Amino acid sequence: MKVIIVGGVAGGATAAARLRRLDETAEIVVFERSGYVSYANCGLPYYIGGVITDKEELTLQTPESFWQRFRVDMRVRHEVTAIHPAEKTVDVRNLATGETFTESYDKLVLSPGARPTQPALPGVGIDRLFTLRTVEDTLKIREFIEQHHPRSAVLAGGGFIGVELMENLRELGIDVTVVQRPRQLLNPLDADMAAFLHAKLRQKGVRLHLGCTVEGFAANGDRVNVLLKNEAPLTADMVVLAIGVTPDTGLAKAAGLELGIKGSILVNDRMETSAPDIYAVGDAVQVKHFVTGQDTLLSLAGPANKQGRIAADNICGGDSRYPGSQGSSVIKVFDMTIATTGVNEKTAKQAGIDCDKVYLSPMSHAGYYPGGKVMTLKVVFEKGTYRLLGAQIVGYEGVDKRIDVLATAIHAGLSALQLKDLDLAYAPPYSSAKDPVNMAGFMIENLSHGLVEQFFPEDVDALPRDGSVTLLDVRTPGEYADGHAEGFVNLPVDDLRERLREVPVGKPVYVICQSGLRSYIACRILAQQGFKCYNLSGGWRLYE
Amino acid sequence: MKVIIVGGVAGGATAAARLRRLDETAEIVVFERSGYVSYANCGLPYYIGGVITDKEELTLQTPESFWQRFRVDMRVRHEVTAIHPAEKTVDVRNLATGETFTESYDKLVLSPGARPTQPALPGVGIDRLFTLRTVEDTLKIREFIEQHHPRSAVLAGGGFIGVELMENLRELGIDVTVVQRPRQLLNPLDADMAAFLHAKLRQKGVRLHLGCTVEGFAANGDRVNVLLKNEAPLTADMVVLAIGVTPDTGLAKAAGLELGIKGSILVNDRMETSAPDIYAVGDAVQVKHFVTGQDTLLSLAGPANKQGRIAADNICGGDSRYPGSQGSSVIKVFDMTIATTGVNEKTAKQAGIDCDKVYLSPMSHAGYYPGGKVMTLKVVFEKGTYRLLGAQIVGYEGVDKRIDVLATAIHAGLSALQLKDLDLAYAPPYSSAKDPVNMAGFMIENLSHGLVEQFFPEDVDALPRDGSVTLLDVRTPGEYADGHAEGFVNLPVDDLRERLREVPVGKPVYVICQSGLRSYIACRILAQQGFKCYNLSGGWRLYE
Ligand SMILES: Cc1cc2nc3c(=O)[nH]c(=O)nc-3n(C[C@H](O)[C@H](O)[C@H](O)COP(=O)(O)OP(=O)(O)OC[C@H]3O[C@@H](n4cnc5c(N)ncnc54)[C@H](O)[C@@H]3O)c2cc1C
Ligand SMILES: Cc1cc2nc3c(=O)[nH]c(=O)nc-3n(C[C@H](O)[C@H](O)[C@H](O)COP(=O)(O)OP(=O)(O)OC[C@H]3O[C@@H](n4cnc5c(N)ncnc54)[C@H](O)[C@@H]3O)c2cc1C
Ligand SMILES: CC(C)(COP(=O)(O)OP(=O)(O)OC[C@H]1O[C@@H](n2cnc3c(N)ncnc32)[C@H](O)[C@@H]1OP(=O)(O)O)[C@@H](O)C(=O)NCCC(=O)NCCS
Ligand SMILES: CC(C)(COP(=O)(O)OP(=O)(O)OC[C@H]1O[C@@H](n2cnc3c(N)ncnc32)[C@H](O)[C@@H]1OP(=O)(O)O)[C@@H](O)C(=O)NCCC(=O)NCCS
Ligand SMILES: [Ca+2]
Ligand SMILES: [Ca+2]
Repeated sequence: MKVIIVGGVAGGATAAARLRRLDETAEIVVFERSGYVSYANCGLPYYIGGVITDKEELTLQTPESFWQRFRVDMRVRHEVTAIHPAEKTVDVRNLATGETFTESYDKLVLSPGARPTQPALPGVGIDRLFTLRTVEDTLKIREFIEQHHPRSAVLAGGGFIGVELMENLRELGIDVTVVQRPRQLLNPLDADMAAFLHAKLRQKGVRLHLGCTVEGFAANGDRVNVLLKNEAPLTADMVVLAIGVTPDTGLAKAAGLELGIKGSILVNDRMETSAPDIYAVGDAVQVKHFVTGQDTLLSLAGPANKQGRIAADNICGGDSRYPGSQGSSVIKVFDMTIATTGVNEKTAKQAGIDCDKVYLSPMSHAGYYPGGKVMTLKVVFEKGTYRLLGAQIVGYEGVDKRIDVLATAIHAGLSALQLKDLDLAYAPPYSSAKDPVNMAGFMIENLSHGLVEQFFPEDVDALPRDGSVTLLDVRTPGEYADGHAEGFVNLPVDDLRERLREVPVGKPVYVICQSGLRSYIACRILAQQGFKCYNLSGGWRLYE
Repeated sequence: MKVIIVGGVAGGATAAARLRRLDETAEIVVFERSGYVSYANCGLPYYIGGVITDKEELTLQTPESFWQRFRVDMRVRHEVTAIHPAEKTVDVRNLATGETFTESYDKLVLSPGARPTQPALPGVGIDRLFTLRTVEDTLKIREFIEQHHPRSAVLAGGGFIGVELMENLRELGIDVTVVQRPRQLLNPLDADMAAFLHAKLRQKGVRLHLGCTVEGFAANGDRVNVLLKNEAPLTADMVVLAIGVTPDTGLAKAAGLELGIKGSILVNDRMETSAPDIYAVGDAVQVKHFVTGQDTLLSLAGPANKQGRIAADNICGGDSRYPGSQGSSVIKVFDMTIATTGVNEKTAKQAGIDCDKVYLSPMSHAGYYPGGKVMTLKVVFEKGTYRLLGAQIVGYEGVDKRIDVLATAIHAGLSALQLKDLDLAYAPPYSSAKDPVNMAGFMIENLSHGLVEQFFPEDVDALPRDGSVTLLDVRTPGEYADGHAEGFVNLPVDDLRERLREVPVGKPVYVICQSGLRSYIACRILAQQGFKCYNLSGGWRLYE
């Protein structure tokens, strides 16, 4: 059996290694357009920032080591230029020599990844305008910085790659401005959660131009002008374009393979394309979203690695199935950690799912043990069924842990009501006896039992201020004095029972505290006195 | 409704708070024998070590704050001395005044916890011999240290509390010797995993006397002699007895409640005891093990908190059920983290479960990103069914995360084969594209498909050295030279294909490398050449 693999990185290299482990006799040839295989895409921003200092660290394997260990023929600087499914051949160009040739295959694996999206804007292609995908791109940016010592940079785009790059440039002391058409960074976050990120970035001196469209670029001496819609242009010493990625599937399209969203390759759960004996994996393929069941694109390394292994299994006569992607993700932003799994509220609603949510802001570990930090969790679930749909967490330590627990719960089909039962490991340096995930479960159970009803930060401003409803802030007078929502009167939770007569009978009561915990307790007191009341989910922390 | 609660800490205080949230009108009285409520048992060792510096931090609530927020009458220094289930009353002694009185209840919650096990040994009770359970115990030890500056300590017992105390005393510069009857510390670990802990402790200068029985204590001037079976006594400036805990259930026993293991209180999954309207929770009760279904005792704060909440729910007319305990635990030992969930191999075998296991030693996060550290995972599963039974992890960062993911998988009833599919969040500072938990899943899948067969460190010494089997070490010559198992010949994996003729045909081959990964690849090469071969699970790291 002869297997040809297009792309020698996350999906392709994994498929190659697994193929060899399954089949000693197969001939395995990998064509890789760039000069490197098995490179750590996800590490590239950190090489630019000088966090990873050794270039060697960026490649987990070389063609030589791959040959030694796996007898896989890794041909870098070789681009596959055409696939002929009927003949079962591919055309290849050796980019070093210009030579072209044709190779036959019994099985073909496509793992070409995605390319930085390059909009057809004036000035794309000028000097000092970079994109980041390959080791070569990385070295180019790094060298530029070392030689020209840019003092300012504009990042067009605020997705994962943009934000990681932004942190790394900022840590080098560069003035960074992020321009982003949506009004928030990191699309997997809902806007309310993205607000924490925006605050952190502003604190770190990053300038944010949100809701702002880039219309082009223009050289300006040694600098670059970034042209904006309805705004004065920005000028910087360098610009990186990171507005997203597009599946690199020209090859597949030309070969007549069936395509999906944004030109991605259609595959079934065995990673088989529409053409016999052609498999495709990674950023280039369309996947089923594990939660919504909808077709989607996700550019993440975990799925690419898993899919590469699955394709290899099936090529070798196995029956491995990809269960779909949940989009679990995590990103470090300075000292902050932001993580998501499943769908956010926005996406759930777009998918037509009737959803509800809880917000909480527990400590990463027991408050009495030094070093704990507050995180903010948002858990989204389906109304009525309590099916877990997704979660978002912004915080510091322990964020990645809770997202993985929630990701596992979602994968296993646990109901949001079962989160309270999870038997998680507790000691003071790591968690609380009621782990944040358990706590989310308690809160959701309370909603399910009608113990409390919620209102949300987005509802606060629209509440009537005409006396028809009571607006209560149950924090301490000091907290209240430091800042409160307009129209809310202060009545500390611990005084509520004694001062109950101050709460007008017969009117709905909207209660707010710092995080939602004390206002929940106040709601319980009020509800049992016959008041119709609502707890501000997420509290002042989120509203503010 | 009048509810009386015995014990005002993890289970009792949680029950009280939840009761109040559910019922504004109930009269809730908590009797607590010690001088403190809502104290952080789990923080006590860290106060002794000076990590927690403020005594106030040790109590999450006071009787005053509990009254203010919850209108719960918390009576410290009050001991319940008898329960009269027929009359629905309890007898109480005010320890401050000596006064005794009787209180009636509609519902009674017992959360008396457990006491440090005090064996009937000569000398128990002498000066400078301490136990640790309450704030008072903690202050006593701390004051002793501050006044007497002990230079040496013996810890009798090496469970969680013993080990935490050991770390804290050691960090104060005290010479610590741990005496433990079993040949290992931390019983939830299998011996092979405990070996990593022992190594760390020796490195930190802690003396371990394992497999050694304490027979008594004797004052020796300002010091204490610890009398050992078949060994010379140890002498130290202080001794802490931490050989385990015993449910504090004299009260329940005298009242005729049905009891279980070690005198624990029998409850159903609603936390109801055998007597009407009496509930019990926490360390004092017997629980079902979530994995084995067997009756067991577990002294952990998470379960106590959850059970307290469940009892409150049921008292207020709800129907909450405790699903059983998995025993998930985590402990910091100097810079190391050790965590477990479910059952270990030893316990699984004792429970009559036919089990198998994998060992792996992945990095906490991507190797190319600075700061990653190796952890060792052991995952235990049922043969044939691939039911997950438990996991143990020893390492540094990221250990608590993986144990919680595995705990969640076990709770959700995922099969060990599904671990490979978990969609976990990946970025270089947090994990690898193939997360350690995924990796365990890959390895277990390989076993299930017969791609590889394992042998274990405990089998190595018994392998024949008479030439009837081939013993191969596939690491590099350098690694081999640094230390190898007797009788194993070096043949690096990358040379194996070329030097295959050196492997005698017709004999089983036992293959060893550093972690099990390269030897797995070697096994795949050999197996496909017709060799019967076995991979040393866990590799030299574990064997050594
Ligand atoms: C800067 C950066 C940071 C990232 N950070 C994260 C992260 O933190 N977490 C995460 O989960 N994911 C991250 N990702 C995404 C992750 O790297 C990708 O999801 C993953 O690499 C996709 O694997 P793949 O095999 O599909 O494509 P790639 O790994 O991109 O490999 C595709 C390869 O195919 C080659 N190729 C394409 N066409 C041809 C052709 N015709 N002939 C020959 N070769 C061809 C390309 O040169 C390329 O090297 C990051 C990506 C980037 C760029
Ligand atoms: C030093 C230490 C470290 C620990 N570390 C951890 C850890 O890291 N992780 C973890 O999960 N668990 C840990 N634990 C265990 C955890 O603290 C217990 O599992 C938990 O506190 C049990 O809750 P409980 O309500 O059953 O008992 P407790 O919290 O012990 O409360 C029982 C209370 O009842 C009182 N009482 C008993 N009898 C009577 C009576 N007759 N009348 C009045 N009052 C009475 C006692 O004085 C006591 O204060 C630790 C325990 C200790 C001692
Ligand atoms: C480097 C690369 C080729 C490695 O591929 P790989 O060999 O499949 O992966 P690993 O080295 O992690 O090894 C995993 C294999 O070892 C096995 N294994 C791991 N630890 C083991 C142990 N202790 N004992 C036995 N087997 C073990 C696993 O089961 C798996 O084998 P399988 O797939 O046959 O089941 C590939 O991951 C790669 O190119 N990565 C870089 C690109 C990339 O992923 N970029 C995006 C992220 S930055
Ligand atoms: C301090 C103590 C009395 C607190 O008990 P508690 O009030 O039940 O616990 P918390 O303060 O964590 O609050 C949890 C409650 O707030 C709710 N909550 C938490 N965050 C919320 C938010 N943001 N919005 C709304 N509700 C929230 C939870 O749903 C839960 O309420 P419920 O049980 O009615 O569902 C008790 O935990 C205790 O005594 N602990 C110390 C002893 C101990 O546990 N020792 C062992 C470990 S060291
Ligand atoms: Ca390398
Ligand atoms: Ca306090």
